[in-house]
Amino acid sequence: MSDKSVQDELKDAIRTIPDYPKEGIIFRDITTLLGNARAFRRAVDALVQPWAGSKVEQIAGIEARGFILGGAVAHQLSAGFVPIRKKGKLPHETVEIAYSLEYGLDVMEMHKDAIKPGDKVIVVDDLIATGGTAEAACKLLQSMGADIVAACFIVDLPDLGGRAKLEALDVPVRTLVDFPGH
Amino acid sequence: MSDKSVQDELKDAIRTIPDYPKEGIIFRDITTLLGNARAFRRAVDALVQPWAGSKVEQIAGIEARGFILGGAVAHQLSAGFVPIRKKGKLPHETVEIAYSLEYGLDVMEMHKDAIKPGDKVIVVDDLIATGGTAEAACKLLQSMGADIVAACFIVDLPDLGGRAKLEALDVPVRTLVDFPGH
Repeated sequence: MSDKSVQDELKDAIRTIPDYPKEGIIFRDITTLLGNARAFRRAVDALVQPWAGSKVEQIAGIEARGFILGGAVAHQLSAGFVPIRKKGKLPHETVEIAYSLEYGLDVMEMHKDAIKPGDKVIVVDDLIATGGTAEAACKLLQSMGADIVAACFIVDLPDLGGRAKLEALDVPVRTLVDFPGH
Repeated sequence: MSDKSVQDELKDAIRTIPDYPKEGIIFRDITTLLGNARAFRRAVDALVQPWAGSKVEQIAGIEARGFILGGAVAHQLSAGFVPIRKKGKLPHETVEIAYSLEYGLDVMEMHKDAIKPGDKVIVVDDLIATGGTAEAACKLLQSMGADIVAACFIVDLPDLGGRAKLEALDVPVRTLVDFPGH
């Protein structure tokens, strides 16, 4: 089937929730896609198709929804998995980075020994909006010497400008469906 | 290779951190296993080997580490994925259950429409200790009509009695490595 039909199938599998988490926001809920076995599998396989058969050492998943997709992607590519977590959740020595949210700052961490310099890494999350979280994750990984071959997301909200933030770090961005006009 | 060699390989890939999160606790850190591509893949494949080729509709992963393993298991079995989350994280209508932690109560939720009555479901988390969290997840799924064919964990801390809690709910438990004397 063509890419178009994958995109249509995935888009149809995503639930739209108006006014969540607050009035005026249109929330794209991927849990309905994850719960649809065929759509979930097609999303994972389509997302990493460019790297099928090539060597990727680590998949970095961003807590928490990026863990679901990232675990599946790591399995598909026979790669390892590196969790990027909210502060205070990892038991060993960590490196951290602060980043801006809509209101105030937050901090994310990864284990200091999770990446070896030169490791080829794919960053995974379910959705890219303003890109602030993914940008921080990429900076953290690059500070440890990761060679980020791509950042992959099922959903892009292109009007919020996330893609440009990652491309400014020389990180190619791959997404499967977009919802313009968000 | 025999099951024994898988067990040894997985056990070797798990990092032990003494006195975490507090003095006297021995923490079994599976992030080193997840980051080891070969060990991660062997763990996922060994965990669900009994259900290879059989129909399982949904993998229910418990937030947050259960998301990583659960995503990979869902991919391996071509099943859907249902997130079981801490309260307030899911955007649609939910069902919830309260459960006891060491200090006080907590609440977990799932989407009300995530499971159809009769769906065959495998519950996944990284580790079973006292089993309180997994027990609550199984009760929540069963209240929605799920047919839980198994609860799967990489690590069992057998002296903490989690297995018996799930078997009392008629949920078979599958684990790959155990650390007695915890």
